Amino acid sequence: MTRGFYIGRFQPYHRGHHRVIEQIAAEVDELVVGIGSADQSHTLDNPFTAGERMVMITKCLADLDLVTYVVPIEDINRNSVWVSHVQAMSPTFDVAYSNNPLVIRLFEESNIDVHQSPMFEREQLEGTTIRDRMRQDEDWRELLPDPVVATIEEINGITRIQHVADTDKSGRADPE
Amino acid sequence: MTRGFYIGRFQPYHRGHHRVIEQIAAEVDELVVGIGSADQSHTLDNPFTAGERMVMITKCLADLDLVTYVVPIEDINRNSVWVSHVQAMSPTFDVAYSNNPLVIRLFEESNIDVHQSPMFEREQLEGTTIRDRMRQDEDWRELLPDPVVATIEEINGITRIQHVADTDKSGRADPE
Amino acid sequence: MTRGFYIGRFQPYHRGHHRVIEQIAAEVDELVVGIGSADQSHTLDNPFTAGERMVMITKCLADLDLVTYVVPIEDINRNSVWVSHVQAMSPTFDVAYSNNPLVIRLFEESNIDVHQSPMFEREQLEGTTIRDRMRQDEDWRELLPDPVVATIEEINGITRIQHVADTDKSGRADPE
Amino acid sequence: MTRGFYIGRFQPYHRGHHRVIEQIAAEVDELVVGIGSADQSHTLDNPFTAGERMVMITKCLADLDLVTYVVPIEDINRNSVWVSHVQAMSPTFDVAYSNNPLVIRLFEESNIDVHQSPMFEREQLEGTTIRDRMRQDEDWRELLPDPVVATIEEINGITRIQHVADTDKSGRADPE
Amino acid sequence: MTRGFYIGRFQPYHRGHHRVIEQIAAEVDELVVGIGSADQSHTLDNPFTAGERMVMITKCLADLDLVTYVVPIEDINRNSVWVSHVQAMSPTFDVAYSNNPLVIRLFEESNIDVHQSPMFEREQLEGTTIRDRMRQDEDWRELLPDPVVATIEEINGITRIQHVADTDKSGRADPE
Amino acid sequence: MTRGFYIGRFQPYHRGHHRVIEQIAAEVDELVVGIGSADQSHTLDNPFTAGERMVMITKCLADLDLVTYVVPIEDINRNSVWVSHVQAMSPTFDVAYSNNPLVIRLFEESNIDVHQSPMFEREQLEGTTIRDRMRQDEDWRELLPDPVVATIEEINGITRIQHVADTDKSGRADPE
Repeated sequence: MTRGFYIGRFQPYHRGHHRVIEQIAAEVDELVVGIGSADQSHTLDNPFTAGERMVMITKCLADLDLVTYVVPIEDINRNSVWVSHVQAMSPTFDVAYSNNPLVIRLFEESNIDVHQSPMFEREQLEGTTIRDRMRQDEDWRELLPDPVVATIEEINGITRIQHVADTDKSGRADPE
Repeated sequence: MTRGFYIGRFQPYHRGHHRVIEQIAAEVDELVVGIGSADQSHTLDNPFTAGERMVMITKCLADLDLVTYVVPIEDINRNSVWVSHVQAMSPTFDVAYSNNPLVIRLFEESNIDVHQSPMFEREQLEGTTIRDRMRQDEDWRELLPDPVVATIEEINGITRIQHVADTDKSGRADPE
Repeated sequence: MTRGFYIGRFQPYHRGHHRVIEQIAAEVDELVVGIGSADQSHTLDNPFTAGERMVMITKCLADLDLVTYVVPIEDINRNSVWVSHVQAMSPTFDVAYSNNPLVIRLFEESNIDVHQSPMFEREQLEGTTIRDRMRQDEDWRELLPDPVVATIEEINGITRIQHVADTDKSGRADPE
Repeated sequence: MTRGFYIGRFQPYHRGHHRVIEQIAAEVDELVVGIGSADQSHTLDNPFTAGERMVMITKCLADLDLVTYVVPIEDINRNSVWVSHVQAMSPTFDVAYSNNPLVIRLFEESNIDVHQSPMFEREQLEGTTIRDRMRQDEDWRELLPDPVVATIEEINGITRIQHVADTDKSGRADPE
Repeated sequence: MTRGFYIGRFQPYHRGHHRVIEQIAAEVDELVVGIGSADQSHTLDNPFTAGERMVMITKCLADLDLVTYVVPIEDINRNSVWVSHVQAMSPTFDVAYSNNPLVIRLFEESNIDVHQSPMFEREQLEGTTIRDRMRQDEDWRELLPDPVVATIEEINGITRIQHVADTDKSGRADPE
Repeated sequence: MTRGFYIGRFQPYHRGHHRVIEQIAAEVDELVVGIGSADQSHTLDNPFTAGERMVMITKCLADLDLVTYVVPIEDINRNSVWVSHVQAMSPTFDVAYSNNPLVIRLFEESNIDVHQSPMFEREQLEGTTIRDRMRQDEDWRELLPDPVVATIEEINGITRIQHVADTDKSGRADPE
């Protein structure tokens, strides 16, 4: 039995993420999907709560023929213990999937096998693009799986992004 | 659609928990199972990591005809924000299930509907009993669903409990 | 101009506290009242939030002929920086009033003048006694100034104490 | 009885803040003034401690015919629990006053009534302007109420700002 | 080159600790001495600051023919990342020395070699005994190396212990 | 006996730091070297762990005729208690050495004697220059003492810096 680990912030979960998971599904029996920065929400870069992201992801994974675990991972702000933190919050895994250089480095220093692929690279661009489109409420739906669109509409996610985009860039609730 | 929320520490997930969930399953369409004290592990009261508990629970829920979300909830040590913390980490829910008086009180002060039942009361006793039996390696298997027994054996959980039971009661890795 | 500093948890603010403040009022021009463990609430030992305690104290001090500042002080759990923490959260002060040996020690190691008096000693006993009476809803009103009684009744404080008194002694919202 | 809540960082409290509070005073019976980022100090953006800001504000509010509570609010760095955190530290309130989009959004998601007005908008600009003038020690006194000027001079606030303005922008005491 | 790691709280460093280190010195080329609970001080169980303990230990190790590193380790209150935390704060080491069952368990789960010996067992008893004697100022000097006695006298350590011993057992500066 | 305190991040310890310490050595009997941001590592600005930096510094100081203490200081992110935090983690000291304006200000507000000198100014520039050279693996060895070069090569430090330099500037292990 092989179990993989794939981490992202999923703000929001989009078609690029879904294609990556479909690709990983061919290589593993079970997959842990880690939701990074689980404690962050209501900012332009991190608009959605961990709970909202968990709904998005779980609904999208329902059709895959794969045992999945969706695990929120709170920030621990100390790179040297981040791998142990992930390992404690997640079911054990045999291989990690990431294209983030720091994540790769940290896993490798802990002797954990890491896989990367050119396909992953499109993720980051798409995340920023999607949030920019949401801010302007233009053509964002086509980049997201249907259950994600439904979740965002249910929680008035577009209004939230537009509101918080006006806040100062610290992204915290402490006005002048 | 009705979604329920049921929280426990699940150290470990046992037959009492499972009967409660079966009972709740009759009342809701979807269920969130919150793993409390997710950041605690390797003590006599909290022997298993959040990831280990997630495996136990997910394997046991697989046969239920119920959409479930398993959500680790780290301690936040500030009762006044605990409900908001839970709400941010969890998919939204309509009703909470608990017999813990503090949990009930906190949810009620936040105007969240809480259900309790006599059946829940057996939980706490069983948790302590099971860990005592594990410490002495006596008759603990019969109180746990099969996938939980398998998980504990795979991670050498009994040895771990016996080791940490010898430590001073602070349960922290700071010897004299 | 002399400014004093007097700290307590004020769970709740009672007649013993008030007599101490009346005594201090004769010695200072302004008084800072620090609300300790401001982040704690909803436990048997710390039933009330900082905001609730602030209302109790402010209402009781309104009749005194004394400039007062009521300052919530969150726990910092590191004795070595506690005095600096207090000094940053509070208006500067010339003398501290306390009968708690640790508080006295910490202030003295920071070369801050500390006053104590036999009168203060009754505080601690009274706090425990009052919460015990509240738990049983027996004769607690006579030990409290009228505005405190009014505040507690407005927030259903007795029900809250009775609820949380049933919880396990860890006082945290994480049931078995 | 109506109680309002108005939050700012008040670095420092200036005439713009005071005009806003005078305006609010016409609408409420009691006012809570929340001091945001209470744990921050000694940086260019947050030069003054919570205690220093509390003195500034309390002295300025003394002449108003309004019951006021001045409440330091430490940052909690987790937007999803920020409203609960504020509610626990503050006396209960019926309406919040803010022009910060994130604050408005967070209060609205918690179903708290929020008022905003064009008048508030001048706050932020003025805060930055005032600190810039302080850094150059030019014409800052005219923008502040007299008790604030007195407080800043008593603590040598201008020297402090000029010192910390030379530090690297992280604003932390960790030199290369 | 072999480097060992030996951790204790050293409240205070006593002759039992010193004998253990002399024994370890025969097995390694370099030794890291970790000061556990470095952030705790001014309580009966943890009377001395990390800095004070560092002086005690460094002075005592000066005569040993061994390269030593004295490393304060702050509590991280999360057993699952404790080993990573130690590894980040300490020079790398080949073998850990401990008789604490939890420490042994955590190192072993991270595949780190742990040595224990009957000699270590006397540590804990001696620590408690010494602090009890200090509290009563009776015969504590004979259990400590001379530089430790000198350090404790220089900081008036006995008075500190006697003061904090009178405080309630929570050991925190928050009086009733 | 005079003891000095000198703090830096030492990412890495370089010849400029060493010249400063040689200069200080003429003025004090003992020196505490504080390693700032001890909890940070694996970022472009803070590539090395506290433990790795402790080895670099200890090896370089071995030849000096000076009693030295090397003390990791974790960030506390609250300027108002930073001096107390340093004082608790460090042996007591009579004079601090720094050219960082914030550090100087904080020590002075606590009435601690601070020395600065033109020589210190070169530190910051050199730190950035060295990390830039490491990123490109060009001529970095000549700026570092030999034991530091050896440590960096032993831990494959150049590869680590090059990896993390590719990560987004937040420097945290949470990819899009």
